[in-house]
Amino acid sequence: MSKSTDQNERLTRVGPGTPMGELLRRYWHPVAVAIELDENPVRKVRLLGEDLTLFRSESGELGLIGPVCPHRCMSMAYGIPDERGLRCAYHAWLFDPHGNCLEQPWDDRANPEAHFRDKIKIKAYPVQELGGLIFAYMGPQPAPLLPRWDLLVRDDLDRGVEIQPIPCNWLQCMDNSFDPIHFEFLHAGFGNYQLERLGRPQGMTRARHVDIAFDVFEYGVYKRRLLEGQAKDSADWTIGHPVLFPALLSIGDDVRSGLHYRVPVDDTHTVQFAYSTRLREPGADPKPIGIEYQVIFDDNGNVIAPIDTTLKQDMVAWVAQGPISDRTQEHLSSGDKGLILYHKLLNENIDRVARGEDPMGTIRDPAKNQMIAIRRSREHDKPFGISNSLEPTLWRNPEKAPSAV
Amino acid sequence: MSKSTDQNERLTRVGPGTPMGELLRRYWHPVAVAIELDENPVRKVRLLGEDLTLFRSESGELGLIGPVCPHRCMSMAYGIPDERGLRCAYHAWLFDPHGNCLEQPWDDRANPEAHFRDKIKIKAYPVQELGGLIFAYMGPQPAPLLPRWDLLVRDDLDRGVEIQPIPCNWLQCMDNSFDPIHFEFLHAGFGNYQLERLGRPQGMTRARHVDIAFDVFEYGVYKRRLLEGQAKDSADWTIGHPVLFPALLSIGDDVRSGLHYRVPVDDTHTVQFAYSTRLREPGADPKPIGIEYQVIFDDNGNVIAPIDTTLKQDMVAWVAQGPISDRTQEHLSSGDKGLILYHKLLNENIDRVARGEDPMGTIRDPAKNQMIAIRRSREHDKPFGISNSLEPTLWRNPEKAPSAV
Amino acid sequence: MSKSTDQNERLTRVGPGTPMGELLRRYWHPVAVAIELDENPVRKVRLLGEDLTLFRSESGELGLIGPVCPHRCMSMAYGIPDERGLRCAYHAWLFDPHGNCLEQPWDDRANPEAHFRDKIKIKAYPVQELGGLIFAYMGPQPAPLLPRWDLLVRDDLDRGVEIQPIPCNWLQCMDNSFDPIHFEFLHAGFGNYQLERLGRPQGMTRARHVDIAFDVFEYGVYKRRLLEGQAKDSADWTIGHPVLFPALLSIGDDVRSGLHYRVPVDDTHTVQFAYSTRLREPGADPKPIGIEYQVIFDDNGNVIAPIDTTLKQDMVAWVAQGPISDRTQEHLSSGDKGLILYHKLLNENIDRVARGEDPMGTIRDPAKNQMIAIRRSREHDKPFGISNSLEPTLWRNPEKAPSAV
Repeated sequence: MSKSTDQNERLTRVGPGTPMGELLRRYWHPVAVAIELDENPVRKVRLLGEDLTLFRSESGELGLIGPVCPHRCMSMAYGIPDERGLRCAYHAWLFDPHGNCLEQPWDDRANPEAHFRDKIKIKAYPVQELGGLIFAYMGPQPAPLLPRWDLLVRDDLDRGVEIQPIPCNWLQCMDNSFDPIHFEFLHAGFGNYQLERLGRPQGMTRARHVDIAFDVFEYGVYKRRLLEGQAKDSADWTIGHPVLFPALLSIGDDVRSGLHYRVPVDDTHTVQFAYSTRLREPGADPKPIGIEYQVIFDDNGNVIAPIDTTLKQDMVAWVAQGPISDRTQEHLSSGDKGLILYHKLLNENIDRVARGEDPMGTIRDPAKNQMIAIRRSREHDKPFGISNSLEPTLWRNPEKAPSAV
Repeated sequence: MSKSTDQNERLTRVGPGTPMGELLRRYWHPVAVAIELDENPVRKVRLLGEDLTLFRSESGELGLIGPVCPHRCMSMAYGIPDERGLRCAYHAWLFDPHGNCLEQPWDDRANPEAHFRDKIKIKAYPVQELGGLIFAYMGPQPAPLLPRWDLLVRDDLDRGVEIQPIPCNWLQCMDNSFDPIHFEFLHAGFGNYQLERLGRPQGMTRARHVDIAFDVFEYGVYKRRLLEGQAKDSADWTIGHPVLFPALLSIGDDVRSGLHYRVPVDDTHTVQFAYSTRLREPGADPKPIGIEYQVIFDDNGNVIAPIDTTLKQDMVAWVAQGPISDRTQEHLSSGDKGLILYHKLLNENIDRVARGEDPMGTIRDPAKNQMIAIRRSREHDKPFGISNSLEPTLWRNPEKAPSAV
Repeated sequence: MSKSTDQNERLTRVGPGTPMGELLRRYWHPVAVAIELDENPVRKVRLLGEDLTLFRSESGELGLIGPVCPHRCMSMAYGIPDERGLRCAYHAWLFDPHGNCLEQPWDDRANPEAHFRDKIKIKAYPVQELGGLIFAYMGPQPAPLLPRWDLLVRDDLDRGVEIQPIPCNWLQCMDNSFDPIHFEFLHAGFGNYQLERLGRPQGMTRARHVDIAFDVFEYGVYKRRLLEGQAKDSADWTIGHPVLFPALLSIGDDVRSGLHYRVPVDDTHTVQFAYSTRLREPGADPKPIGIEYQVIFDDNGNVIAPIDTTLKQDMVAWVAQGPISDRTQEHLSSGDKGLILYHKLLNENIDRVARGEDPMGTIRDPAKNQMIAIRRSREHDKPFGISNSLEPTLWRNPEKAPSAV
């Protein structure tokens, strides 16, 4: 039940030209929270193994272009935003969000007839803002539509984002999301052990899994669990929790829901945008989006924070498998059928892309994309009694969040 | 008199399958002080180039097993001690100290007839506790006996351990121990120069070496020195100081003696367990073992502490030869005959192991291993007037040591 | 207009045996400020990819020798200065500045007839002190003369040195010095943008370049600029600013002048000795040389200081091109003719050295080397109104500089 090295490489490598890199380039990925550009409108970004420069021009237009100026290879991260794009700090060449060189101040006046700037392009990818996030698309044109998941577009929600750098391959995060039974062991078992070692009360009642199941649907997979003592008509078993293809976990219920985007930075680094929403109380004013950076690991993957929430326990499990988990050494069991299914879907969709087809979940019909409602259980079942642990830090730190609810 | 690259590799490399790695795997090596497991009963250990997990079960049994769970490659360093062994944090698979998988909670109830756990093993090495230290053996079975050196087993001694990470190859530490004349130069000369630069009084009277000699015995080599002004019946010349094969320096006299274990972590890292004993005063209560961590170097091998003791001067000499000393560039002289002898013994014993024989100092007769007394001079001759420098920090910091003597 | 990988390697690599390494080894390079040896007379030095040990003997003689003792490869950075040279800390072997082994204390008395020390040499390079700097020469003998630039030898100047580690290849620093027009964009444009972001007043009036020109002379190249509104008889256009071959920028005017030595540490590291002088006021006492260390970048090349001076803006431009700028990706324009000329000179002089000839600027006639006066504009034209930015930090921090003027 273990994989060959080739199979593991095929599933994990994200750089340009790799099979998985090509599949992932058919989707939009978040690269920043829009308000991150307020203080400094130019940021280095690394996505799918490529170094890039994200910026907002003085007119408010977003751009995602190559890391260095084509003139003398100066980093564009020092660029100066202009009305029409971003200027290199060194000689003020100006690039627009489409990668065109609009100005070369010295050559434009010293040698205008040469039209040298018309020969110059910088790599550029489309970006779009939605729900307070900035998304990028790095695949071939025409780009599919950026999915308008309900949580991104509903006007009755307040929003926050926790940003977590994860020093390991992205697939470890996703494998975890396709594995319902770890909840019983990693969160109830190990989680309680950690809390006990920290001298804190137990966080979670341990409930045994009776069954797990997985249903493929248009946008991904619903995972379902049945726990000891749970009726078969519980929403956990009848509806379950969706994982959206290729790398997005949907969590929560009707009142508090979230989307956990796992963004492959490169083969051994991931960043999670843990996007949280909360139903606004009737009559209340909308709150500006909150943002919080959470660094749980040092550069060597060692934990540098208490492992006191389910999310942190998950992150520890991801990173503790190493920079890229050596799946040639693993022994999958009957509890791993969710991630076996997921790997099968990934492989099938790699093949679809290789055949020139759109992969699973591609949206090209604007009518379907007004707002894509994800079916969720009506209210959280709290089978593990974990409502507190699922509550993102964001809402529990009033001084950091927009305001306490 | 310099070595070829191949000869240097043969003497220094410690990984599995290397000639020296195979020789070193025929001996027990300390990996921790037992009390280090009191606060956290699970620790990462790296020994002879292998990553491992040391633990103490809830029933008090010690285990040293592979670094990751065979299920999904999660680090066992996050494991939870159980009555019978160590559970993986992710899905609670339970392993005993022999590497057997005793439980797979999900599979055991979902799919018990498959007996999947019987197909699963994790790497496991025997460990034993003696004299407050935990020793591991990584070679083929049957394992030799763990040597019961007198200082580890006598009941009239109090004990302490200084633990020093050394960012260089282990052989540099041992070469130093087979080189009596460096004492005159590194400790008296350079040591006094360092103390002078620190504005402190001279630490050592400089005495010239007149002769050096080496006697191979059953467990290693006695090195002897004769200094200017010393009579030929002095214990330094008639008895000398033993180095125990393969990597253990014995120091001191009848009152204060020590064992300096140099443990090869990997090719470029060593950890020294500087084990100190002191004769308990008649009628006094036994003291619990003391422990102190001493970090003298940063990751680049730069000294980050004053070089004010003989032990620190030795450590500087080891590390200042680089991660692995380039012995193809060295020019050994007549003063290096001790380490030339030592390298010859190492090479001979590599060959013995290759022929399937037990190497030097292997103990298999329990009768001989009740307590192995090492002959020492009756009291320290103090030829260099260095009694203070040899005093380990442990005993000089009453607040850190068990209690001041 | 971009280079091949081979062409870029040829221009940038500085190790022994590389074409550029051989050219650079025909010149003297500063390795320390003499007063840096006052506190500790022994220092590690890395120059042109070679690790070395700089020392001052007890008699005051300077030496630059190999990094490790030929005996047991112990680092000579722990050496003990002696009347006649430097002793290894381990066994006190003594080396003079010419690399001879003068003493081996143990072998000299145990085995004197072997004359073992006569068979031992350590690598040694000539060093000379001039103007408060220590210069080294690593090429073949006979060494050319150490150039006695006027600023190093005049007796009417006070002096200071800022030492700046630069985590990138040396050529990026020099390319910048051969590029007059960046001043308008990097300093006026980007510099003002940085000051604005820091909430400080604009530092520089932006003046447009009308023309640039370059004149090769015996010791290097004069670069000239003509700005909008500047008369053609201005010193900036009639004289210009000299860059001395191969890697020395001359700055300033008759009152405050400087020499910016860019010293190639290895392929991806440079150290700048920014040597500043100031005309001493009539009747004033000479001031001792000042020294200041400026760390602008972390190990990853990220800026860790405000970018608030022209010198820091230049350093950002150097380092932001990466460890070695990928000149296969650059697109040089008409404004880059200065650095195109410089690369041509470098290539021609690499060829001269390969033919066994002295390269450009080699000085072998002592009569010419009494004092080499560099022609400068009579007083600074301040076309950009930047006198403050050019003022080295040294003189603006009275508590750090010798004394405020």
